[in-house]
Amino acid sequence: MRIRVINPNTTAAMTAVIEQCARAVAGPGTAVEAVTSTMGPASIESHYDEALAVPGLLAEIARGEAEGVDGYVIACFGDPGLYAARELARGPVIGIAEAAMHAASHLGRGFSVVTTLERTVGQALDLAERYGMARFCRGVHATDIPVLELDDPEVRGVIADACRAAVAADGSDAVVLGCAGMADLCEYLTGEVGVPVVDGVAAATLWVQSLVTLGLRKSGGGEFAAPPPKRYTGPLSTFGTDGAAS
Amino acid sequence: MRIRVINPNTTAAMTAVIEQCARAVAGPGTAVEAVTSTMGPASIESHYDEALAVPGLLAEIARGEAEGVDGYVIACFGDPGLYAARELARGPVIGIAEAAMHAASHLGRGFSVVTTLERTVGQALDLAERYGMARFCRGVHATDIPVLELDDPEVRGVIADACRAAVAADGSDAVVLGCAGMADLCEYLTGEVGVPVVDGVAAATLWVQSLVTLGLRKSGGGEFAAPPPKRYTGPLSTFGTDGAAS
Amino acid sequence: MRIRVINPNTTAAMTAVIEQCARAVAGPGTAVEAVTSTMGPASIESHYDEALAVPGLLAEIARGEAEGVDGYVIACFGDPGLYAARELARGPVIGIAEAAMHAASHLGRGFSVVTTLERTVGQALDLAERYGMARFCRGVHATDIPVLELDDPEVRGVIADACRAAVAADGSDAVVLGCAGMADLCEYLTGEVGVPVVDGVAAATLWVQSLVTLGLRKSGGGEFAAPPPKRYTGPLSTFGTDGAAS
Amino acid sequence: MRIRVINPNTTAAMTAVIEQCARAVAGPGTAVEAVTSTMGPASIESHYDEALAVPGLLAEIARGEAEGVDGYVIACFGDPGLYAARELARGPVIGIAEAAMHAASHLGRGFSVVTTLERTVGQALDLAERYGMARFCRGVHATDIPVLELDDPEVRGVIADACRAAVAADGSDAVVLGCAGMADLCEYLTGEVGVPVVDGVAAATLWVQSLVTLGLRKSGGGEFAAPPPKRYTGPLSTFGTDGAAS
Amino acid sequence: MRIRVINPNTTAAMTAVIEQCARAVAGPGTAVEAVTSTMGPASIESHYDEALAVPGLLAEIARGEAEGVDGYVIACFGDPGLYAARELARGPVIGIAEAAMHAASHLGRGFSVVTTLERTVGQALDLAERYGMARFCRGVHATDIPVLELDDPEVRGVIADACRAAVAADGSDAVVLGCAGMADLCEYLTGEVGVPVVDGVAAATLWVQSLVTLGLRKSGGGEFAAPPPKRYTGPLSTFGTDGAAS
Amino acid sequence: MRIRVINPNTTAAMTAVIEQCARAVAGPGTAVEAVTSTMGPASIESHYDEALAVPGLLAEIARGEAEGVDGYVIACFGDPGLYAARELARGPVIGIAEAAMHAASHLGRGFSVVTTLERTVGQALDLAERYGMARFCRGVHATDIPVLELDDPEVRGVIADACRAAVAADGSDAVVLGCAGMADLCEYLTGEVGVPVVDGVAAATLWVQSLVTLGLRKSGGGEFAAPPPKRYTGPLSTFGTDGAAS
Repeated sequence: MRIRVINPNTTAAMTAVIEQCARAVAGPGTAVEAVTSTMGPASIESHYDEALAVPGLLAEIARGEAEGVDGYVIACFGDPGLYAARELARGPVIGIAEAAMHAASHLGRGFSVVTTLERTVGQALDLAERYGMARFCRGVHATDIPVLELDDPEVRGVIADACRAAVAADGSDAVVLGCAGMADLCEYLTGEVGVPVVDGVAAATLWVQSLVTLGLRKSGGGEFAAPPPKRYTGPLSTFGTDGAAS
Repeated sequence: MRIRVINPNTTAAMTAVIEQCARAVAGPGTAVEAVTSTMGPASIESHYDEALAVPGLLAEIARGEAEGVDGYVIACFGDPGLYAARELARGPVIGIAEAAMHAASHLGRGFSVVTTLERTVGQALDLAERYGMARFCRGVHATDIPVLELDDPEVRGVIADACRAAVAADGSDAVVLGCAGMADLCEYLTGEVGVPVVDGVAAATLWVQSLVTLGLRKSGGGEFAAPPPKRYTGPLSTFGTDGAAS
Repeated sequence: MRIRVINPNTTAAMTAVIEQCARAVAGPGTAVEAVTSTMGPASIESHYDEALAVPGLLAEIARGEAEGVDGYVIACFGDPGLYAARELARGPVIGIAEAAMHAASHLGRGFSVVTTLERTVGQALDLAERYGMARFCRGVHATDIPVLELDDPEVRGVIADACRAAVAADGSDAVVLGCAGMADLCEYLTGEVGVPVVDGVAAATLWVQSLVTLGLRKSGGGEFAAPPPKRYTGPLSTFGTDGAAS
Repeated sequence: MRIRVINPNTTAAMTAVIEQCARAVAGPGTAVEAVTSTMGPASIESHYDEALAVPGLLAEIARGEAEGVDGYVIACFGDPGLYAARELARGPVIGIAEAAMHAASHLGRGFSVVTTLERTVGQALDLAERYGMARFCRGVHATDIPVLELDDPEVRGVIADACRAAVAADGSDAVVLGCAGMADLCEYLTGEVGVPVVDGVAAATLWVQSLVTLGLRKSGGGEFAAPPPKRYTGPLSTFGTDGAAS
Repeated sequence: MRIRVINPNTTAAMTAVIEQCARAVAGPGTAVEAVTSTMGPASIESHYDEALAVPGLLAEIARGEAEGVDGYVIACFGDPGLYAARELARGPVIGIAEAAMHAASHLGRGFSVVTTLERTVGQALDLAERYGMARFCRGVHATDIPVLELDDPEVRGVIADACRAAVAADGSDAVVLGCAGMADLCEYLTGEVGVPVVDGVAAATLWVQSLVTLGLRKSGGGEFAAPPPKRYTGPLSTFGTDGAAS
Repeated sequence: MRIRVINPNTTAAMTAVIEQCARAVAGPGTAVEAVTSTMGPASIESHYDEALAVPGLLAEIARGEAEGVDGYVIACFGDPGLYAARELARGPVIGIAEAAMHAASHLGRGFSVVTTLERTVGQALDLAERYGMARFCRGVHATDIPVLELDDPEVRGVIADACRAAVAADGSDAVVLGCAGMADLCEYLTGEVGVPVVDGVAAATLWVQSLVTLGLRKSGGGEFAAPPPKRYTGPLSTFGTDGAAS
């Protein structure tokens, strides 16, 4: 089984962290490859960034389909392009917010999300609602640490503090890490915070592995069927009839 | 006051229809210009199309900001890129689904949406929820007429039949037209269907005009503040630091 | 186009303020007249007051219908008698809570309402739910200033403080003013509070103007059709068969 | 204990039916008196009628308070003026829709409401939501029998048919009768329909009796405290400072 | 009329308190008997305890059915086994959380629950949702007093403090006591707290009495029909074909 | 890793089917053992049966804990005793309704449940709500085939028909099988129905495996902490202080 984990920002160092966390949990028969998007923003910290990260993500899905990949993880907590990716892929596509929130819902009555910039809180709340997880999501808390500074060793303590404060304020049973760039902090934070801490990169990898093992993939018709072939114009013309969706 | 109506697909003939419908309702002091996106799909009929129409839409917002436009209408019923556009624009940005659903909510207890392809129904339901209009939206009904065939005179009757059937099935007080390409059918359909019929292009034009008149625009900070400048890579690099968001 | 703004309390001084705020935003072709109810309470600060303000409001709607008015604003934040007024009027009727909440929903993810007496908070919450705006309404905050003391220059600062406190507590993107008597404070408060401030009197005036321009009015049948003629008894007998609804 | 059942329409024949049904269930120590409103419509079949029935209802509450009544039933399925009545009364006030829906919620997972005119359906749905009963209310079904024709012996069969059809369509565990004028049909319908049939007049009488026995009444402050005294103008001036609320 | 109040824990001293509070409100024609479960935990303070209290509760329902009891109260705030009990009983079965929350919903816009251990809060929230009372339930507050220490005179003041704090924090119109063991504190607490205090034991007794008086009982078929006879194994075999459900 | 799949009814033949379906998907390092409850009903087809199956289920959890089991599947679609089991177990416990609904939510916008007896529909709806899956669950459809007749070869076609009818009626993207006894029909039904078919036994096995791999288990405190030790009486006394929970 081949699972591709797509980092939809263009920062390769972050992809390396993501790949390591995904591989650490995959089963023996599962090959996990992480790839970095080749177009768009260096990090995703606004609706604008997110929207413009999607074409690069979809190009990776199209490439994966050509290469026979079995399933995909979208390794950004905004789950950018999830529905479009599901149209394009034959196998399952899971976002890390989706997987992390689902996982946390099995651990208790409520979880807190700890994330990067305050301006991304709204997107996390929208996703919680979309996935039916709003009843479990007790709060989304920003640390105001930019995505590309998460590898600074000094921020670990700040994030641990934010997790503890979130659990206390929300009375939560678990913490969900609100950025793929926090994946390698999960073990450390689990030791620091008194409740389970969920990293969506690892969770989504196992969710995809499980769905592929179960043979579960979208039906051939309906909302998520392959997009109808169509003429595309301008810099994105490769996504049209003779491009990705053909 | 200058309002720009953006057709986020690349079909100029549809833009002409849209412009006419928007101008027909704008006040005497309001200049309405409709523009056609220069990149992306010829029509938007999937999540994939919608995601790939957003960069072209954002390019038009960026151009409008440089030209001092006061407010924007996104003239596609999926309201693609609405949140990203709000980050980029100083003035109000309204989607046609948003305006049409709001307008219909003032006319009675429930409305039906009549739209194009079945696969777009889910997006309309998501938007109804996002805008708080789910309690008014009693059903979304597909005609399975592709967007680019809406100017075929023969489809008028099919759409009228679908509107009547939707009203009967849902017990609705109004019909919302689920595609910008139906804007010029609104008058005809109003005569055919026994309840008011709402075209979002006209409604959104007046909503933007009203918000500009009221002096209401997003606050400077928070979720919809201007996106943080950032390095962008590849075909979309013009959207980065030295591009649209600067 | 003739729009009538009805002050459903009997205090003419408040009507003058309301008329000025409504006229300030109406388009060049729109004649705005504000009228004062001739029966009921001097201000509306309880469910009791609100219920007893409705007959006077309906009498004004009936008079407006006889005079060919095109649309109505109910200028009290409880939106008293909205549904009954819609039955009676041929054109659109919009409440100021309705318009203000809708307008604020286009400005961001959440708004706070700042209102007069604590006991009116529940009604504002009910209206937010009725209009689908509960997901945007993050809090309703009372200043405990009675309606008829809003024209005291000393209260301006108290209200500004309440707005700032509400925004801080709720993390809101906008403030909605919870009383028609605050309409003339909107400009001042916009300067004082860091987010947009919405006055429902102005907003509702433009909403009605927009709906009339769009030619949108209730369908002839259904819940909001003209009320069935009926015998009325006692002091309200003028509202019956030979009265308002005939 | 004295319970007053108020018929908020002006049709005394209907009051007689209501009184009989209320007395049939009241406990030995409970005196039940039904009264007819002295102002407003002969029957309540629109939002307009309902709004204009409220002053008469409130006059009866005020009279009851002067006479030392312990609790009140509002015997119209729209529960008109419920919140205003609660402000005025020291003891409990229960609407028949409120009591019937609550009672039905204890009998199974879902109930159907069978009512009079189609145009009243929306009000029943609003009440179900207000009382938290929307999750139990599976449908509201109109018979299109006017309120004042409910005493026609020929309509019994029509209503029984409507009840059976509603139960079949909704898969309901109970039927709620949607009009006080149906109170005396409850026993007949229980025999005809295969599920329990709930009459709100009887239910509300026992709910009030129970609340009085429990000593439960609103707190002295807050939303439902006595309305603040205030000057009232015109035909309703008796409701003001020197009138009902004093 | 015979009403049986079942204490589903095995502590007879608590049953005595419960019986006294139930009898104090029952009508002259109503015989109230309280019984103590003969199997399971001494008090119910976890999902585990609750699950294991249900067989004993069901045995009492089966015994009551054999003895011709008309209706039942489940006197534990988790309302354990409510649905199973409804299948077994011919007459109404009401839980004390159910009755107390319903009663409180008639007293204002929101109530607070004050309960025993923190770990039981989730169950109370689940019940509020199940009964449609979530919109009224503003908070569930634990005192962390174990159930079997509620008869300690020293805890009265602690509970009164918790009630006052809950009302202040939630802005509630009423307090619901979250344990049958608090039933005899209701009068004291009513005097201490500024809002009505609701004891579910008394409320449920009157709810059952009311439903029996109204002749309302579940329909013969559907979800709550008598459970299908079935072979049971092991220590619970008496509950099977030749046992309770036969 | 050791996963125990508990059949909470006492029918060993059904356990054998369940074990086979669970083992078919488990990873190479995972040992799956299915066990049959030793007390309670032969099949679970009512709230009564479900309540009385829980003690046997909890006894198996207690035994598993003593034996060092890493995680548990509750193999009955009512997910009986889930919360109590979570208190008792150190590792994850997942119900098959829970896992199947979650899995189906990743496959599209909505699923239909196809189940056994009509009277179990309510429980499935309750679970969908509890897990946040109500927005995905478009309908629960009964075949009225008793649990213990599911191994009759003749019922396969009936269930396939029901699945197809459910998909057509609900417009669903997937079918969830509503009984552990249908697990071995999943492959057959997938071939017959045009959308993916989800068996909760297999899904829950992989969910537990994933959670154990991720190292995610409940926090030590809070609602799902180990139940407080307590004296138990009667036939269930082994569950008390000296029994399971000790």
